Amino acid sequence: MTDGLEILPVRGIGEIVAGDDLGAVITAAAPWIIDGDVLVVTSKIVSKAEGRLVEVPADGTERDQARAAVLESETARVVARRGPTTIVQTHHGFVMAAAGIDASNVDKTHLVLLPADPDESARRLRDNLRERGLDVGVIISDTMGRAWRNGLTDVALGAAGIDPIRDHRGETDPYGNELEITQMAVIDELAAAGELVKGKVDQTPIAVVRGYPRSALRDSGNASALLRDAASDMFSLGTAEARADGLRQAAQLPDGPGAALPGIPVDPAALDRAAASVADHLSRSTQVAPADAIPGSGATAALHLSTLDKSPPGLMLLGADAHRLRAALAAESIVTLSLPHEDGIRLELSGT
Amino acid sequence: MTDGLEILPVRGIGEIVAGDDLGAVITAAAPWIIDGDVLVVTSKIVSKAEGRLVEVPADGTERDQARAAVLESETARVVARRGPTTIVQTHHGFVMAAAGIDASNVDKTHLVLLPADPDESARRLRDNLRERGLDVGVIISDTMGRAWRNGLTDVALGAAGIDPIRDHRGETDPYGNELEITQMAVIDELAAAGELVKGKVDQTPIAVVRGYPRSALRDSGNASALLRDAASDMFSLGTAEARADGLRQAAQLPDGPGAALPGIPVDPAALDRAAASVADHLSRSTQVAPADAIPGSGATAALHLSTLDKSPPGLMLLGADAHRLRAALAAESIVTLSLPHEDGIRLELSGT
Repeated sequence: MTDGLEILPVRGIGEIVAGDDLGAVITAAAPWIIDGDVLVVTSKIVSKAEGRLVEVPADGTERDQARAAVLESETARVVARRGPTTIVQTHHGFVMAAAGIDASNVDKTHLVLLPADPDESARRLRDNLRERGLDVGVIISDTMGRAWRNGLTDVALGAAGIDPIRDHRGETDPYGNELEITQMAVIDELAAAGELVKGKVDQTPIAVVRGYPRSALRDSGNASALLRDAASDMFSLGTAEARADGLRQAAQLPDGPGAALPGIPVDPAALDRAAASVADHLSRSTQVAPADAIPGSGATAALHLSTLDKSPPGLMLLGADAHRLRAALAAESIVTLSLPHEDGIRLELSGT
Repeated sequence: MTDGLEILPVRGIGEIVAGDDLGAVITAAAPWIIDGDVLVVTSKIVSKAEGRLVEVPADGTERDQARAAVLESETARVVARRGPTTIVQTHHGFVMAAAGIDASNVDKTHLVLLPADPDESARRLRDNLRERGLDVGVIISDTMGRAWRNGLTDVALGAAGIDPIRDHRGETDPYGNELEITQMAVIDELAAAGELVKGKVDQTPIAVVRGYPRSALRDSGNASALLRDAASDMFSLGTAEARADGLRQAAQLPDGPGAALPGIPVDPAALDRAAASVADHLSRSTQVAPADAIPGSGATAALHLSTLDKSPPGLMLLGADAHRLRAALAAESIVTLSLPHEDGIRLELSGT
C-alpha cells in the first residue's frame, strides 16, 4: 500500500570512466536524494566505472570478428539464432540478445560488457551511499527484449536493499478466493518505471523512485532471484533450435536390445495420436499390428511391423517406416526399442 | 525528456458490475485527474463493466471441466504445457497462461475473461472521459508471466491516446554511434509502473501517471502494435512442444521420388555436423559414401548407403539408418529424398 510514487531523473551525471566513485558522482549530482529512495542505475555506467570495457577495432571485418569473440566469451549457451540476432544465456544467467554487449554510449574502439556481478555492484553502491549517510535501495537495470511482444523494456540485473519480489501467496481477495497471481517481479517494474524518465542519448542514466513502501526496503534477496534456470524454463530454447533438437533426437533414438525400458504404461490416446501422425507417411506395403510385450523387458506394449514386399528395397522401406513410427512415438513421450528379425520388426514400447 | 513522473493510486473505485459507466466511476473517485494524465486501468474492471464473465460451478469436477471448456474457447493455439500450466495464444494474440482467464476478485461462480478488444475498450474509455472534459491517455493492463525470468509484471493489453512505442531509430549518442536499442515498449513500462501502486486485494484497480511527455499523448497507434506474430517470434512454441514437433517432422520426412528438391547448395560444414551427430548411432554394417547428385533432380549433393549384412534384418537396419541420417540432415536444414534400390539407398540432398 502506497500513497503514490515519484519517478525522478538524475541530471548531470556526465561521463563515467573506470575507477569513478559512483556514490560520490551520484550524491554530487543529486543532493536531493533521501533515505528510502530507490535508485535505478543503468548498468552501462556501472560497467564503465568498473572498467568492464573491451577494446575492439573501430570498423571493418576485424571489428566483426573481435565482437564475435567477445560474444562467445560472454556466452554460457546459445538460446536462439535468427539472421544477425543471437540470443544467449550469459554466465550470470540472463537471457539477452548479444549477451548484453553494447556499443552505444561508448567510443567506437570499445564495447561495454555487463557488470561481472550486478547484485554485488548494487550492494557495493548501496554500501557506498550508506557510508555517505544515505539509506537507499539500489537497482542495476538494463534494456532487454522478450518473447511474444515487440519492443524492449528495462529490467533489473542487480538489486540491493529491496525485496526483489512482492509475494501475495496466501492472501485472499474480498470474495475469499486465494490469489492465483502471487509473485510480482517488482524490481523489474521499478526498472521499467525508471526507464520512462531516463534517456538513451541525453545522459540521464539514473532515476530515483520516491515513495516506495519502506517495508520492502531491506536486504532480503537480490535480482538473481528472478533468473529462471533452463531446466525449469518452458522456453529455454528457440523454437527452431528445439525443433532441430527433436530431429537430432530422432536421428539418435537408441537401438535395442541393450537399453532398458522404464516399464511405465503406455497412454492409449498417445499411441493413437502417434499412429495417426505417421499413417500417411508409411509405405503401402508396411503393416503394423499390436503384439504382446516381452515379459521382463521393461516394455508395457509392443507393435509388430511387417511388409508385403520382401525385396531388398521393400525391407529397407520397412526399416525406415519402423524408424518413422519410433520418432512419432517419441513425440508423444513413448520410448521404444527396435528388434528387427527375419519376418519383420518388433517395437517394444513404454511410457516415460 | 521529462522532469519526472508521479504514479498515483485511485482509491474508492469499489465493485464494478456489468453495465457500469467507468468514466463516471473514475471521475467520481478521482476528481483530481487532469488533462495529460495517463490512466492505467486493470483489465479486470473493464471486463466486469463489459460483462465479460462466464458462469461456472463453484467447485468440483464440474468446475474444472467448465474452466477447461472456457480456456479452449479463448485459445487460438496452445504454446506450451507443463503440469497444470497451459500457456496459449489468445484470439487477440496475447501469449498468456490460461488465456488470461481469472477467478480472483470475482465470486466463486464466475470467471472473468479478458476484454474482447482491449484497444477498443481503451478508446471508448478515452472518448468517454473526453466527453467529460478530460483529455487523458488510457492503458488497459494485465499481469503476465514471461520467458526466462521468474515473477510476473503488468503489461498493456490495450491503449488509446498514447504512443505505444518510443522509437529511437536514427538517433545517435554523444559518440556519434547510431543507437542499437531503438524501440522501447513504453506502454508496457507504464503498465508496470502503475502496478507498483495498485493492489491485488485492496481494490485499487487504477493508477494515474502524471508528467508523461505531452508529445507522446496522441492517437498514434494501439497496444496491438506490441503483439509479435508467431511467424516472426523466435519463441512461438515451448521447448518441449517444439522438440516434439521436430520428432514428428522426422516421422513425416517426405519420401522420394515425387517431391522436388530446391536445388540449393549444401553447406559442407552442416553436412559434416549431421554426419557426426549420427555416426555413433548407425549399425556397424552400414556404410555411407559420397555420390553424384542426379542431374535435374534439384539435388546438389548425394550420399550412397549400403550394408555388409544382406540378411532381412540387415536390410531393415540399413533402412532405419538412412532415416536416422535424413533426420540428422534435416536438423541442419538439409532436405533429402530417399531412393532405395537393390544394392542400397541413395539420398539426394539439397540446402534450403
